[in-house]
Amino acid sequence: MTERVKIFDTTLRDGEQSPGASMNTNEKLRLAVQLEKLGVDVIEAGFPAASEGDLEAVTKIAQRLKTSVVAGLARTNKEDIDLAWSAVQHAAKPCIHTFIATSDLHLKYKLNMSRDEVLNAAVEAVRYAKSFTDNVEFSAEDGSRSDRDYLCKVFEAAIEAGATTINLPDTVGYAIPQEFEEMVRYVMAHTPNMHKATLSVHCHNDLGLATANTVAAINAGARQAEVTINGIGERAGNTSMEEVVMALHTRNNLMPFETGILTEHIYPTSRLVSMITGIMVQPNKAVVGANAFAHEAGIHQDGVLKNPMTYEIMKPETIGLSKNQLVLGKHSGRHALHTHLKQLGYDLSDEELKTVFKQFKALADRKKHVMDEDLEALVTEGVLRSSEIFRLEYLHVTCGTTVMPMASVKLSINDRSVKGANYGNGPIDSAFNTIAQLTGTGAELLRFTVSALTGGTDAQGEVTVRLRENGLVALGRGSDPDIITASAKAYVNGLNRLEYLKAHPVKASQTL
Amino acid sequence: MTERVKIFDTTLRDGEQSPGASMNTNEKLRLAVQLEKLGVDVIEAGFPAASEGDLEAVTKIAQRLKTSVVAGLARTNKEDIDLAWSAVQHAAKPCIHTFIATSDLHLKYKLNMSRDEVLNAAVEAVRYAKSFTDNVEFSAEDGSRSDRDYLCKVFEAAIEAGATTINLPDTVGYAIPQEFEEMVRYVMAHTPNMHKATLSVHCHNDLGLATANTVAAINAGARQAEVTINGIGERAGNTSMEEVVMALHTRNNLMPFETGILTEHIYPTSRLVSMITGIMVQPNKAVVGANAFAHEAGIHQDGVLKNPMTYEIMKPETIGLSKNQLVLGKHSGRHALHTHLKQLGYDLSDEELKTVFKQFKALADRKKHVMDEDLEALVTEGVLRSSEIFRLEYLHVTCGTTVMPMASVKLSINDRSVKGANYGNGPIDSAFNTIAQLTGTGAELLRFTVSALTGGTDAQGEVTVRLRENGLVALGRGSDPDIITASAKAYVNGLNRLEYLKAHPVKASQTL
Repeated sequence: MTERVKIFDTTLRDGEQSPGASMNTNEKLRLAVQLEKLGVDVIEAGFPAASEGDLEAVTKIAQRLKTSVVAGLARTNKEDIDLAWSAVQHAAKPCIHTFIATSDLHLKYKLNMSRDEVLNAAVEAVRYAKSFTDNVEFSAEDGSRSDRDYLCKVFEAAIEAGATTINLPDTVGYAIPQEFEEMVRYVMAHTPNMHKATLSVHCHNDLGLATANTVAAINAGARQAEVTINGIGERAGNTSMEEVVMALHTRNNLMPFETGILTEHIYPTSRLVSMITGIMVQPNKAVVGANAFAHEAGIHQDGVLKNPMTYEIMKPETIGLSKNQLVLGKHSGRHALHTHLKQLGYDLSDEELKTVFKQFKALADRKKHVMDEDLEALVTEGVLRSSEIFRLEYLHVTCGTTVMPMASVKLSINDRSVKGANYGNGPIDSAFNTIAQLTGTGAELLRFTVSALTGGTDAQGEVTVRLRENGLVALGRGSDPDIITASAKAYVNGLNRLEYLKAHPVKASQTL
Repeated sequence: MTERVKIFDTTLRDGEQSPGASMNTNEKLRLAVQLEKLGVDVIEAGFPAASEGDLEAVTKIAQRLKTSVVAGLARTNKEDIDLAWSAVQHAAKPCIHTFIATSDLHLKYKLNMSRDEVLNAAVEAVRYAKSFTDNVEFSAEDGSRSDRDYLCKVFEAAIEAGATTINLPDTVGYAIPQEFEEMVRYVMAHTPNMHKATLSVHCHNDLGLATANTVAAINAGARQAEVTINGIGERAGNTSMEEVVMALHTRNNLMPFETGILTEHIYPTSRLVSMITGIMVQPNKAVVGANAFAHEAGIHQDGVLKNPMTYEIMKPETIGLSKNQLVLGKHSGRHALHTHLKQLGYDLSDEELKTVFKQFKALADRKKHVMDEDLEALVTEGVLRSSEIFRLEYLHVTCGTTVMPMASVKLSINDRSVKGANYGNGPIDSAFNTIAQLTGTGAELLRFTVSALTGGTDAQGEVTVRLRENGLVALGRGSDPDIITASAKAYVNGLNRLEYLKAHPVKASQTL
């Protein structure tokens, strides 16, 4: 008998708290639509009390989704819960997710509260949330390092107050599988009313054990897994959805559990998350890495040819990895583009379609085959980005082994045109120096990465920069067949995102 | 009472089989020296029968190392074992590692042998290897999918024949921790002479469970872990050394085991492996990812400030992650460079030092602070690379938003100068088109990645390209403050590596 395990995706909340991975509302909405298509049971859309941007994004996602539950995170205070409800109330299936830490370490150093005070806060928060909606989740932050009996007391009280899901997080990624499995069994056995709620787990990957801990907890009775796509999240990240889902799928003989995930959407979703957040997946990442499948990696050992099962335990098609992504060329019309974008999950307005079609034509002139990845990039750049202060209008660069690299740039700043030129150590440095001079930014460049969106020398380059200014960190992205232009676009995008962060200060951040 | 677990590193053998990650002899030697410094017990230096390059690399590593055991891989035939011994015999502590598959699936589709034939082959191979050296390891490929009782019979016979280490691999990354732990217990209990050998495990990460399976096996009695740095290896890779070591280190209360690893060398070794192989580490990778530590990621929650343990279970210093890597500037002399390179593990000849010093001076003119990473790149490019057919002599590129990108290139091909110019979709495409035209290469560009070696806009860009020609895949790397020059260097390096692969055909490849 196969039992159902719910998948709770927190890419939009805990995943977004990866340093620099903040997404704007349009990007979040696009990702939420994709997560619903993937078959996620619960989408944690954000932490409405964290910032106005989060509030807006959760509201829009709630208004849009039809089948997935939309959860909003809230601390145990009334203001947070009011804000969470104001956002998720629009959802077909809303959920309020409230939390407070239960470990003595957090009680002492973070909350400065007693155990009784924390228990009361939890109960009142659940009761208050329950006054708005039936679907209330309660999490005990740093649960894995909490006193077990106290934890059970808090869980019992939260269920008594109306919580329908109880979450046990390994907030700091400290647990090891056997220990975590025992802890889940203990909690199941010593929380008298646990049968009235679903037990959930939420693991972090600091020791590389998040997937194993999650699977161990499911074996012990947990029936919800909190995960992110590609395992993104603070520090070493959260449990990877793709790993948990494919472990249950591949080893169904030992673990008779099923999820609602349509596995063939895993790879496109993984790709979308790395494109939107700029967080790359390493080639040796399980399930979604570029080398994950033997066939893709060009392993042609005798055994593989005679029977793929000799070296391959999953089929690439199962996760939606197909080489045949060629879709459109220079003769494709607007209708074909529209239809294809719809299939990809983009429902664009006429105005937006016009913008994207123009860019598509320009790209198709330079690049023979326009792939799904190219279209995603066009939409990301052309439509998903919010209104911008800085815009790149013109760039010209000269460089080489013996020439002093230089750049000339025209930029529009709040629709006013400015021009300048500068030199640098290389073409990108020259372009960045010129842009920095024109904008007067004080941002520091922390990291810079480039990858090709597709194979071949005519591939579009996708550049990600990480900028820091006064403690704020923003990622900027740009894509173009010309890598220097892509870099300049990414830098300008990063500066725009810094401006957005300055205008939308984060009031609270939270990792469970 | 703390028990000792041996660390067997196979970055140079199984890790090198990551698609495109082939290293030349100098690079392998450099990495082997670093692994010895890190405190690895056994270094699997290669598979001497695989290619002449492997044979040469294992020989040189054996001649060089003093404290680590140097192992060479061999199938169960005499030729393989002879070759392995001819290479490792020079080592202070040699080891021959022989293997054969034991699962019915591999027997049928790969080996076409009966169970008795495999058992006899194993016994004869171990006996033959034992005639050369006391230290013989035997591995049962696809062990985790083998019949348990047959596996125990093979292990018993191999120990009887003289094997001092018995390895149980999860070749296809199929096992889950509880199952693997039980299997290890079963094998320990049902192999009568197991106490005469060390039990080793070798896991793959296809389901994201390699670290958990390895730790579970150690809990069950395994006393050697086979791992790679950064978890590189075929498909989703091998068990990550850094995760296993830090899990045992951090959770010593539950797992009272110690390794010989000097943890403060973990981060520099991780960095060296990604530089040499071109395989990037994702920011959310456990232990060695850029975001792995809360402090690095700029998390300044109240709790962290009051007590780092609220969100951080490991200290960055423990793995050798320090921000203070600034080492040399433009006024540093040759002696200072020499001393510093020695500390980094490079023992250069006068001639080599001269080459690197010249490049160092050129770099210091363009870049204020020269970091360890920059020096590693200089040595990698200037010294570790083998003699090259193609060399980039001159490059000049023009590009921008409205200009048609073009490149002019001077190349030396076997010391003959050729010149040319071409256009392209972008500056890199133009440079690549010109180089392709001059070399007449048929190589296809599969992937292209760039990262900055250090922070700041004056950072050197490190470019990795993956090229394919007639089924051969090569990675090329180049670094330069000018990203276009770095890309051209990487492309030329990739073409040289393809030539090297053509000249050194791989006769066999093996994943355990």
